[in-house]
Amino acid sequence: MSDEPVQANGMGKMRDPVRLNLTDLHRFCRDVYTRMGLADEDAEFAARVIVAADVRGISTHGVRLLPRHIDAIRSGIIIPDARMTVLQETPTTLRIDAHHALGAAVGTRTMLALMAKAETVGSAFASVRNSTHFGIAGYFAAMALEKDMIGIAMTNANPVGVPTFGARGLFGTNPLAFAVPAGREAPFVLDMATTVITNGKIEAYGNRDEPLPSGWAVDAQSRPATESREVPTGLLTGRNFILPLGGAGEDHGGHKGFNLAVLVDILSAALAGGVSGPDVRHHGQPYPGSLVSHFFGAIKIASFRDPAEFRSDMDRMLRRLRECPPAPGHDRVYYAGLKEFEHAEECRRLGVPVETPVFEGLATLAEDLQVRRPALDMK
Amino acid sequence: MSDEPVQANGMGKMRDPVRLNLTDLHRFCRDVYTRMGLADEDAEFAARVIVAADVRGISTHGVRLLPRHIDAIRSGIIIPDARMTVLQETPTTLRIDAHHALGAAVGTRTMLALMAKAETVGSAFASVRNSTHFGIAGYFAAMALEKDMIGIAMTNANPVGVPTFGARGLFGTNPLAFAVPAGREAPFVLDMATTVITNGKIEAYGNRDEPLPSGWAVDAQSRPATESREVPTGLLTGRNFILPLGGAGEDHGGHKGFNLAVLVDILSAALAGGVSGPDVRHHGQPYPGSLVSHFFGAIKIASFRDPAEFRSDMDRMLRRLRECPPAPGHDRVYYAGLKEFEHAEECRRLGVPVETPVFEGLATLAEDLQVRRPALDMK
Repeated sequence: MSDEPVQANGMGKMRDPVRLNLTDLHRFCRDVYTRMGLADEDAEFAARVIVAADVRGISTHGVRLLPRHIDAIRSGIIIPDARMTVLQETPTTLRIDAHHALGAAVGTRTMLALMAKAETVGSAFASVRNSTHFGIAGYFAAMALEKDMIGIAMTNANPVGVPTFGARGLFGTNPLAFAVPAGREAPFVLDMATTVITNGKIEAYGNRDEPLPSGWAVDAQSRPATESREVPTGLLTGRNFILPLGGAGEDHGGHKGFNLAVLVDILSAALAGGVSGPDVRHHGQPYPGSLVSHFFGAIKIASFRDPAEFRSDMDRMLRRLRECPPAPGHDRVYYAGLKEFEHAEECRRLGVPVETPVFEGLATLAEDLQVRRPALDMK
Repeated sequence: MSDEPVQANGMGKMRDPVRLNLTDLHRFCRDVYTRMGLADEDAEFAARVIVAADVRGISTHGVRLLPRHIDAIRSGIIIPDARMTVLQETPTTLRIDAHHALGAAVGTRTMLALMAKAETVGSAFASVRNSTHFGIAGYFAAMALEKDMIGIAMTNANPVGVPTFGARGLFGTNPLAFAVPAGREAPFVLDMATTVITNGKIEAYGNRDEPLPSGWAVDAQSRPATESREVPTGLLTGRNFILPLGGAGEDHGGHKGFNLAVLVDILSAALAGGVSGPDVRHHGQPYPGSLVSHFFGAIKIASFRDPAEFRSDMDRMLRRLRECPPAPGHDRVYYAGLKEFEHAEECRRLGVPVETPVFEGLATLAEDLQVRRPALDMK
């Protein structure tokens, strides 16, 4: 359930944003998760993941989802004190059952375990079943950066995606993320849905009552669906579907996006022994990502070559992309992760932008749970 | 330099096809490679790879390229008796210098070494630099299938691809392939260029003098380039570029295809210490894939779970995709590898279809090298 990195919401696109203090927003989320029954460490992990989404400008996956997490805990979809168990382990692999724990904590714990393995043997992979919505895939991939590793994270998701030439939702937005360290340049962090667009982006269009671009969603007769206020419900009820990356048909590679999504489902669910495709739903409930499976990986650069030389080559490659002459009418070329890196720097200076309706929702939640509401940034 | 799996050339699209005997076509290719100075085993490996492309219906990468391989050997781009060397090795990783050996033999040898490692430790990865055009990425990924492993293969390629909002060729068609075993169903074999289309497909349109669909190639001003006879030259001279998967701009995810291509370049060239991006060319010569880098991987299913249970889950997943109700106007849904699997079965029954001009080229080559020309299939 990730989002398009280079379509990160800038302030300009948000409705009435307020700037929240980064440190206090983190404290607030941790307090909320603790109050809901997560162990201290899990609450800390979960707070890091959800705040990181807003900080990176991927507000579709940020604190606006916190009230939904709470609802999911209250309705038993997420089990806050569940303990993940290891089903199988080798020096390079882990298979885990998350027992409906909060996905963000599951992902963080799994990546920590994998990185310890990769430190010893060079690379390690994990598949996880029976987990829940984990937030931005890129967060877990990027955990590997400070260890001079390449990080990988994927997840399956609710079946909103339609196969090429098909007429049923058989896979999710199934994001994949790869993070690769660089030296002076911002690291490469690819975090992309394998469908052409995410549920969250469609909801954002609905909130602004803007029609969806053609080529994003269709109905069961393969006709374009552009009513942004209706499509989110249609996705849940099987009346609408999201097209794969590459769009409808094969002429522009829609079959590639379709099969990338299937690949994510295989590495996540089939390796873990979890549910896949149309089975990823929770009794038709509108909570995204119940009973999902994930896939994670860590590859240690030093097992291939000297990390300093690698980072220097990465800098050269990324700088060349960043300095690519722009096409007429455009200013810059962004490689994956660069916009989000710049957005994060701005958040550290100015605070984290959150739409006023989202902030009001957090304030209500604060009152409800008797925790201190997040402070505005006074800088 | 791979191709769209589900756009495999059926007989219907070929110009005047003849059917060649599969066994004898393999013998012919092996004889040609041997005559050109490859060691017996390398010639055998290379013949398997190039014939597999035609058998799987990806004729853009099949025996039509054999005369180009010979030219590349004669002009010193491919060094037929080069021996690959290991630059670094751990239990799970290999870094290799191919010293300009033929990519198909390099890829086969590397996958064999990786699978032996993965058998012991569960998973293994290799990056290879200074290699040459290796043919279809899917061949190497699919080598893992009979060992109950997931196979991975990628390669960088000549810089024909343009970044989102950019105006220069900074990456190749950079294919990635993943092969996953199933039980009764045809295995899942995803083999896709990360650009919207390949050089080979554009050449095929040129051979038929058909205009290219809009959304495949552009000129330096980002205007659509549809002249299929001119674009192949434009790609070599930097006047034309191929768009990433997802197309122009960000609205339909062009930035995803762009960054998938960069990811392939990173895993191949940056990990191997090879050349990347616009440096992947050979003095402007029109031979594709000189000085390319590859990335390979093998993941043993049994290190995650019981392979029989995995295959059973794969069958269920793949059957559900195959049996998806089709959209109006369509007959079937194909998952990745299914069309190629069916094409291969047909080739084993009826022989391998090759266009008459290609067959004539092989006959000329046979005379030139004093080897027996490939026999027609008499079934």
